[in-house]
Amino acid sequence: MTEETAARRVRVERLSGFIERAFTAVGMPAEDARTVASLMAEADALGSEGHGVFRLPQYVKRIRAGGVNLRPDIRIERERAGMALLDGDNAMGHLVMHRAAELATRKAAEAGVAWVGAHHSNHAGPASLYARIPLRHGMIGLYVAVGNANHLPPWGGTELLLSTNPIAIAVPAASRPPLVLDMATTVAAYGKVKTRAQRGETMPEGWMIDRQGRPLTDPRRADEGFLLPIGGYKGYGLGLMFGILAGILNGAAFGRDTIDFNADLVSATNTGQFVVAIDIGAFIDPDAFKRQIDIVWDTMKSSPLLPGFEEIRLPGERTHHIEQDNRAQGVPIHPALDRSLADLAADLAIEPL
Amino acid sequence: MTEETAARRVRVERLSGFIERAFTAVGMPAEDARTVASLMAEADALGSEGHGVFRLPQYVKRIRAGGVNLRPDIRIERERAGMALLDGDNAMGHLVMHRAAELATRKAAEAGVAWVGAHHSNHAGPASLYARIPLRHGMIGLYVAVGNANHLPPWGGTELLLSTNPIAIAVPAASRPPLVLDMATTVAAYGKVKTRAQRGETMPEGWMIDRQGRPLTDPRRADEGFLLPIGGYKGYGLGLMFGILAGILNGAAFGRDTIDFNADLVSATNTGQFVVAIDIGAFIDPDAFKRQIDIVWDTMKSSPLLPGFEEIRLPGERTHHIEQDNRAQGVPIHPALDRSLADLAADLAIEPL
Repeated sequence: MTEETAARRVRVERLSGFIERAFTAVGMPAEDARTVASLMAEADALGSEGHGVFRLPQYVKRIRAGGVNLRPDIRIERERAGMALLDGDNAMGHLVMHRAAELATRKAAEAGVAWVGAHHSNHAGPASLYARIPLRHGMIGLYVAVGNANHLPPWGGTELLLSTNPIAIAVPAASRPPLVLDMATTVAAYGKVKTRAQRGETMPEGWMIDRQGRPLTDPRRADEGFLLPIGGYKGYGLGLMFGILAGILNGAAFGRDTIDFNADLVSATNTGQFVVAIDIGAFIDPDAFKRQIDIVWDTMKSSPLLPGFEEIRLPGERTHHIEQDNRAQGVPIHPALDRSLADLAADLAIEPL
Repeated sequence: MTEETAARRVRVERLSGFIERAFTAVGMPAEDARTVASLMAEADALGSEGHGVFRLPQYVKRIRAGGVNLRPDIRIERERAGMALLDGDNAMGHLVMHRAAELATRKAAEAGVAWVGAHHSNHAGPASLYARIPLRHGMIGLYVAVGNANHLPPWGGTELLLSTNPIAIAVPAASRPPLVLDMATTVAAYGKVKTRAQRGETMPEGWMIDRQGRPLTDPRRADEGFLLPIGGYKGYGLGLMFGILAGILNGAAFGRDTIDFNADLVSATNTGQFVVAIDIGAFIDPDAFKRQIDIVWDTMKSSPLLPGFEEIRLPGERTHHIEQDNRAQGVPIHPALDRSLADLAADLAIEPL
């Protein structure tokens, strides 16, 4: 039996309950623990396995080291009709971005479009979590973040000055699943490199290069090179601009100021992110819009296929199937992760998963 | 002497005056002709040679065929504090997007951020033209458009359902040139393919593939294949989402409804685009922000280089140098273009360039 087939499946609610217990045990207020746990378990339900409970031991370590403020005053620092800027007060990023997305949604209901940024936030999990919050209110959501460690240089250089700065865009459909794009501006997200390293697998050429510009395919040598942006200088430009909009504009860290949150457990990361909510009804009849998105599904799917392809996928389609399966069968918890969560439970003296 | 060195240089004002005469000759009101001519000449000044006076003969052809409304009522159809939707009334796209960018800038001065979309617009030239308008008011500008012809299929398919849907983002600096990203979501913009075909050059692998998925490097065979999105399925997803935001959300054409404006001179293209203006002062002290952008310039430029690279470039840097040169020396007009403009002048009985 391989590690893959040995993964046990844990119901989303149970997973969320475990995460909540862990955070409560290290002193997080009950309501906040519930909010963060629910978002982390949702990340697992959506198949973002590198962004859910997998992060719990590291988050706990950071909280114990004093790197996260457990009694934050997350507040609106600046506000106008079409925007707000939050001071995250070094809270868990999930709390800051949950607040940002809810606020953007509320403001967009009035202003039509609202852009809410934050500084002094922290790692908040997968980008799509926060683009999906406006979706629940029938709106379009958009999220951009400055990544929490620099994994690539400017195009043509070798100094790690940029992160994978991801974007997520979520658009509702009528009878089809929503379209949800969630992508790093690099060919591969860094989490994928870590996963390959864990599993002892190699990477395809095109993910990373070394400092001489040669292909790097051994993920255990990741420190000797860097990620490649999508489309070369284009992905570099896009990631750079996203970093400016999510970082500098919000008064958050960017470039050399970025704190590697895995290497430094104490310094405030001053992470910057933003959410845009778009009230579809401000532009067009929302039902007509959603029917058009159904047509986008059908049209794209109906294209003849290139040799070697079995189907055409829409953004968010794979995630939709994974989520249905995970919510019905439980989230797969791989043995190595299971052991680390059992250790954590013993350490915190809480009921195990 | 090659065609390249034989290009004569024409002052930007002179170029603008010629374009204005041509549009006036085919019945465009004087003020509109001045606005469009000025934007087209600016495109040439910025080095977007495929988007400036190069397009004049085709625009004139379309106007004469009745495909453009010369007496448009460009009006605000819907409006809230953070957004507006324009009905372009099938006007020249330059007029619609100029209006959209000015409106977004005005609204952002109040709301902090403003998003202005349009339907029934037309081709408007390079994306960066409209991202640069908020820049003149010290703001950040962002522009996204649905392209005017489909040049790529959904990822894994062969039916041309998507355009190169470009994005431009413009950010002001203090003592450095602004950062201006202007990119198609494909590895190469279609205009680059056309330019290679004109010059009898081949294309590098990675720009296009044929219907069997094989590399296509002969630009004269461009009709037998399609452009590749940046980062494979990622660029496809990004282009698709941009198309939904700029097209469907605005009630504009997308997918199978896209009119190829070169093949069909008469049908309204119902082009969709949007501009976002961000008032930096709503988020952060604008001078501090601009100094940070200067630091971005210096930091990126100071990175050690990869073998094979001579320098690190920032988005908009090359354009900045081209613009300085073109404004000092004049815009290069290549002999083939010069001849077609001379023919146009004779045809319209206007003073030649």
